[in-house]
This record gives sequence, structure tokens and C-alpha cells, in this order.
Amino acid sequence: MSADSVFASIITIGDELLIGQTIDTNSAFIAQELNKIGVWVRRRVAVGDVYEDIKEALDEESRESQIIIITGGLGPTADDITKPLLCDYFGGKLVVNEEVLAHVKFLFEKIFRRPGPILERNLKQAEVPDNCTVLFNKNGTAPGMLFERDNKIFISLPGVPHEMKGLMTDEVIPKLLEAFTMPVIAHRTAFTAGQGESMIAELLKDFEPALPPNIKLAYLPSYGMVKLRLTAKGDNKTDLEKELNPYFDQMLLLVKEYLVSDEDKKMEEVIGGILKEQHKTLATAESCTGGYIAHLITSIPGSSSYFNGTVVSYANEVKRNVLGVLQETLDTHGAVSEETVIQMATGVRQKLNTDYALATSGIMGPDGGTDEKPVGTVWIAVANAEKTETLKLNLRFGRERNIQMTALHALNFLRKFMLTNG
Amino acid sequence: MSADSVFASIITIGDELLIGQTIDTNSAFIAQELNKIGVWVRRRVAVGDVYEDIKEALDEESRESQIIIITGGLGPTADDITKPLLCDYFGGKLVVNEEVLAHVKFLFEKIFRRPGPILERNLKQAEVPDNCTVLFNKNGTAPGMLFERDNKIFISLPGVPHEMKGLMTDEVIPKLLEAFTMPVIAHRTAFTAGQGESMIAELLKDFEPALPPNIKLAYLPSYGMVKLRLTAKGDNKTDLEKELNPYFDQMLLLVKEYLVSDEDKKMEEVIGGILKEQHKTLATAESCTGGYIAHLITSIPGSSSYFNGTVVSYANEVKRNVLGVLQETLDTHGAVSEETVIQMATGVRQKLNTDYALATSGIMGPDGGTDEKPVGTVWIAVANAEKTETLKLNLRFGRERNIQMTALHALNFLRKFMLTNG
Repeated sequence: MSADSVFASIITIGDELLIGQTIDTNSAFIAQELNKIGVWVRRRVAVGDVYEDIKEALDEESRESQIIIITGGLGPTADDITKPLLCDYFGGKLVVNEEVLAHVKFLFEKIFRRPGPILERNLKQAEVPDNCTVLFNKNGTAPGMLFERDNKIFISLPGVPHEMKGLMTDEVIPKLLEAFTMPVIAHRTAFTAGQGESMIAELLKDFEPALPPNIKLAYLPSYGMVKLRLTAKGDNKTDLEKELNPYFDQMLLLVKEYLVSDEDKKMEEVIGGILKEQHKTLATAESCTGGYIAHLITSIPGSSSYFNGTVVSYANEVKRNVLGVLQETLDTHGAVSEETVIQMATGVRQKLNTDYALATSGIMGPDGGTDEKPVGTVWIAVANAEKTETLKLNLRFGRERNIQMTALHALNFLRKFMLTNG
Repeated sequence: MSADSVFASIITIGDELLIGQTIDTNSAFIAQELNKIGVWVRRRVAVGDVYEDIKEALDEESRESQIIIITGGLGPTADDITKPLLCDYFGGKLVVNEEVLAHVKFLFEKIFRRPGPILERNLKQAEVPDNCTVLFNKNGTAPGMLFERDNKIFISLPGVPHEMKGLMTDEVIPKLLEAFTMPVIAHRTAFTAGQGESMIAELLKDFEPALPPNIKLAYLPSYGMVKLRLTAKGDNKTDLEKELNPYFDQMLLLVKEYLVSDEDKKMEEVIGGILKEQHKTLATAESCTGGYIAHLITSIPGSSSYFNGTVVSYANEVKRNVLGVLQETLDTHGAVSEETVIQMATGVRQKLNTDYALATSGIMGPDGGTDEKPVGTVWIAVANAEKTETLKLNLRFGRERNIQMTALHALNFLRKFMLTNG
């Protein structure tokens, strides 16, 4: 880190984080947004709804970070103590903000359309410390608050993810860009699939030590994929990109056998991109993945232009009656077999009238395994009008992860098939 | 917290957490497991792959916590520095552990079946500090490590979720139960849907202040649901449950209109439970939810006994040809209409031969909205052989959240329908 770095800490508040009932997705979003503008998140801390613990975290984090972002603890229920604490901490007093009050009333009367009068606890959300800058929350009733002290900026945001996101993008980032001169950071991320972290690292074992000190490589493994991120730091955007790009290209070459994308995309985005480019359509027939592949594909905006639909055939009856799998095949080879999955793929392609089809059948566990076909046995098929290809997996995880791994492998198998047979 | 409380801190290590490329799900699992045995997680801290920052976190957290659990930073790639640091911090030296070495070799030779010799970087995972207790990781190559100092326990676990989970359950929890005398904690959680946090809080506004000091109420809101958790603390399990239960029953009565379950279950588990009890079957026809409802239902082990399958009808052609929606209906009322969603539900119920069917059609955004049917317009239908009911939603979030909210509302609508018409 160069001396001119701007450091941030994220403090998340709520007992629900400490008993593990809630997974903290807010911190990741906040970190991404800060990172984009060149702010380095030094620490993330989660504390409970305990006055002294929140205060201690504010003290500690403001010692080394110039930006402290707090989320949570602003909701309408009685276990929230953040606002009074911030009032004490910065020496303000709570006053009603008329703009926020009007917005709370607007939301309850026109948008939520809840019958009856607005509750006192909802009206109280319009109270803010008189020494903060109010950040307008268009998506909800709890406003954001910005405090300044000793050239440091403290920002408090509600914990509801879509409210926090709107405030980060619309209010926080512009205000931080005004307040600080940021160092320039450039990232480029490549996305590989089908090999583990250690094998990818082996391909890059001479590349990484030869990087200049201002360029760093990070491995980001998850479910059958490894993302490789190069981060460069400097003073001038154009120079930095000019310096980074040749290293990035060199890295792409070294991992080219497993390369899915030279951008930080999701697998389902890559699949959508290929389908759009080829002007082709896709359907899936899912047994063991139970609609999860369809969910991934349809999570991408605009997927209706290339995705016709899915048949989830959990029951053999559905495999037969809707997809046209032969009873004889099910009797002879079983539902989890190469023969069945081929008929599922060809069946759904014809039935849903698409260019490509992808089918899965397997045993995800914890029950249903046999000696011959243990839990984790999966068959995948892809088809177009001319050709069908299959892949067998032997997974060894729990149900949830088996489903996710099957989906990732199936999409990667489809991707290669489309690129070869497009 | 009573004086005899055992406190823990969780430290997660990795730059990927600080740039937001990875969402930290490990901490939630660890916190849950600790909580079950009466350990209170005081703080969670995430730091980068920076020697000094990790050391500082260990110093700070061990000041007030008796248990410090570290995850991440043990992988086979070069950006991992945790193991050497732990060696320095506790004054040990790295030695090869023969049991771990044999396990690494076994995994690579028999399970991963990767061609070629085992990489040096994989073999190095068998090196552990000579002053730690090795925690055997049956699911992966990186072992867990346990260090003791000043009556505090430090545990280092790999960051790969299924490896960390196996180690927590099999090794960490039993060792902590040996090492500490835990206070007794009892939780009971109720699950409501269809009302926001503030309305539920209004129902409980006299209940909460009347709770004794050792019983606390927490609100855990998420996607259209609010979970209500009562936590009691004491010395004797039987007495504590006897004390807690009447308060819990009183709370259930107060929220009964919105009560889904008196257990901490997922909505899809509740649905599965009703179907099993009624010996009935379900199919879904999903347009806007794109298979997400099917994914939720099939994420429950044993769902194949009551779930026949799904038709995801993204294309109108699939609505017509597979589900039997009339072209005339699509022309007159459009794909997102009460008429269409009724035909989807009745069509899929007949086609997939089930007792119940659930159907969704809507506009999830960001594109596709019109003045008459803006983004967030959703129609839901449920059907059995005798009856069909519909529900219209007007959502106002982003695509991802619109899909999740639709799924939750649809499952809750189905739940009520099944209880009334079962």
C-alpha cells in the first residue's frame, strides 16, 4: 500500500450476525463499491447490539481508517440502538427531519398502502442527529447519516440490502469522491473452470514471482471455478492499464486450457453471451439439479431472448410423459444413466423447440445411493440437432454443494459444446 | 451476559473478503455451532492477507475472548501466509505430520485421481507447527490446528466451506466442550411471513418489555418473513426450558395470524412437511421465477416423495404447447395475467399428475415493464382438483430480489391454500 492510500473499515451491527442466523452480504457489496473508487477496505468487523461493543469498534476502526461505514441497527424494532449511540458518540441530539418524515409518510400511505395510521415506531425513523448530513434513502424509511470528525468520515446505513445498495451508489460514493483524493487502482480478472486452485497455481508458478511489486495476483476459488485477479496500483489510470495489460495477456495464455472468460463474469452470463452471439436458443431438462440451472440462467436480465424453458422431471412419470424417456430405458438402465440423460436432452430439445438442450440426472444425497450408483453419481448430456455428448461426475459433497457443482460442471460442458458445435 | 459466559471471536482471513469478491458464509456456520453449545460470539473480524493485520487481530481478539477461531489462509496458493504466521505467533516450527501426509497422498491418488505426481505445494499442506494439536480434515488436504495459550484456545481452519464444516462438527465442538464449562442457553424461534418487522413488533409491543432480564427477543427479518427468536440464559437446562416455554407460547398467540412455524425452519421445509402429512404431491409452472421455486423445494432431502416436477415456461410457445395455455388467452390478456397463470396452474397439475400446482408469471425487470404492467407485476395461482386461487403482487425491487420475494409469497400462498383445502 502506498502512503497515499485511503483505508476504510466496515462495521456491521446486529446480534443476528453473531449467532449466525444472517449471512452478511452487505459487507461484500460495500467493499466492491469502495474498491472500484480506489478505497482499500482494511478490516470488516461485526459486533452485536451492545452499546459498549459498538463504541469500541468505532474507536478502534477510526484509529487507522479514514472511512468508517456502519450498517445495521437502524430498523424499527426495539433491539436497535445504533441511532442513539451515534448521537452520543458525535455529541448531537435527535431532531425530526421534515424531508425524511414526508418520505416515511409517502411510503406508508402511497406505496406500502398499509391500512390504519402510521405507527409511532415508523415515524421515529425520521428522527436524525442534528449534527449529521442526512443521506436520502429512496428505497426505505431509515435514512443514512454522515458524520465528520478529525478528517475522517463516518457513515451509517440501514442493514436492509436493497436500501443499503441504493444509498451506497447514489449518496455515499459521490460524497467520498468529493472528500478524498484516491490512488488509482486497476483490476483485471480472468475466470477459469474445471481445475482446482493448486493446478492453476502450478501453471502460474513462474509468472507470479516475476510480477512487479505494484501488481498482485489473487486466487479466488469457488465451486469448480478459480478466478484470477491482477490488481495494479499507481498514479495514472492510462499508464497503469498500459502496464497491467501485457501481464494479464500473459496470464491468459498460461491458463488458456481452462479459461472461461477474460472478464469477471458469472458462468451463466458467459452462456447467455454465447447464445446471443450465435442467435440460438436453449432448454434444460433437470432431474437432480431440480431447476437450479434454469434459475441461474434466468437470473440474467434479458435471458428470455435465448432461454425457452425447462422441464424439471423429478418423477419418472414426468421423464416419460413430458420428455419422452422410454419406460424400457428407465427399467434397464435406471433414471441415473447415460441412456436416460441422453433421452432427456433430446426430448426437451424437441418438446421446447430449441437449438441446444442440457440435461442432468444424478443422486444428490443424503439418501438414494446404492453400491453401484453412490451418492454423487451424476450424468449430464448436451444436444443440438446433430449431436449429443455426455459427461459423468462422481461428486463427494453434501446435497447443496452437489447441486451447485453439478450445475457449474453442466454449464461448463454446455459452453464447450456450444463453442465447438455452434 | 453472566460472568461465567464463554466468549469467542471469529477471524476470517483473505483479501477476497475485503474486496467483496467472496461472501463470508463460514462465519455464520461457525457462529451457529458455537451458539448451540452456549458460546457467545462477541466479534467477527475479517482481515486481508497481511501479516501485521492478522497478528493485530489475534492480539486484540484474545484480549476479551477465550476462544479464537480463524478461517482461511490455508490453501495451496502463494497468497496464503496464515500457517507461517501461526508458527511465529505461537513459537513453533513447521514439521511434516505423517498422518496428514498419508491423507494428502490418499486424496490425490484415490479420490481426486489427478494424473501425474502430487505437486510440492500439495505435499506442503502436511506441514504443521510442532506445538499444535492437529485436527484431522477428512474432506480436504489442509488440516485444522489447535493452539493453547493462557487458558485461551486458538483454532485455525481452512476456508473451504465443506472442509471447515466437517472440522467444526467433528473436531472443534467436542474439544471445546472438553475445555470449557458452558453456561446453559435455550433458544426458541418462531417464523412469520406476510408482514414486515414493524407490524410484527407492534403486535409484541407489550410482550417484549415484560420479559424477564434473562430472556431476550430478537427480530430476524428477511425477504417477506420475520423470524422471532427468544433466547434464555441460565444454569439448568430443564428449568430454563420450563421458564422459556410459556413466554414462547404467549408470543405464538400474539402473532398467530402470520405464524408459519413454531420451529426455525425454511418455508420450503414447512411446505414439504405439509405435503408429506397430507400424502399429496406438487408440481410448479414457473415463468418469472425461472425454476427458483423448484430449486427451493428440491433443496430439501427427500423432496422426490412429494414433488413431481416443474415446467419453466419462459417462452409463450412452452406455455401453449406444454402447459396448454390458450393462444387466445395470451393474445387477449398477455402472459402476465390472472387468466394465464390460472391456465398454467391447472395445465401443469394435469400434465404432471399432481394433487396441487403452483404457478407464477410476472415481470422481474430491469426491462419488460409497461405503464399498465410495470416491473414487479406478478400473478400467482394455486390449484387442486376442485379449486383455483390467485394472488397479485406489486413488487418494487431489483430482479434478484423480485424473484426471491415472488418465490416466498408464492410458497406462503400455497401453504395457506393447502392448510385450508388439504
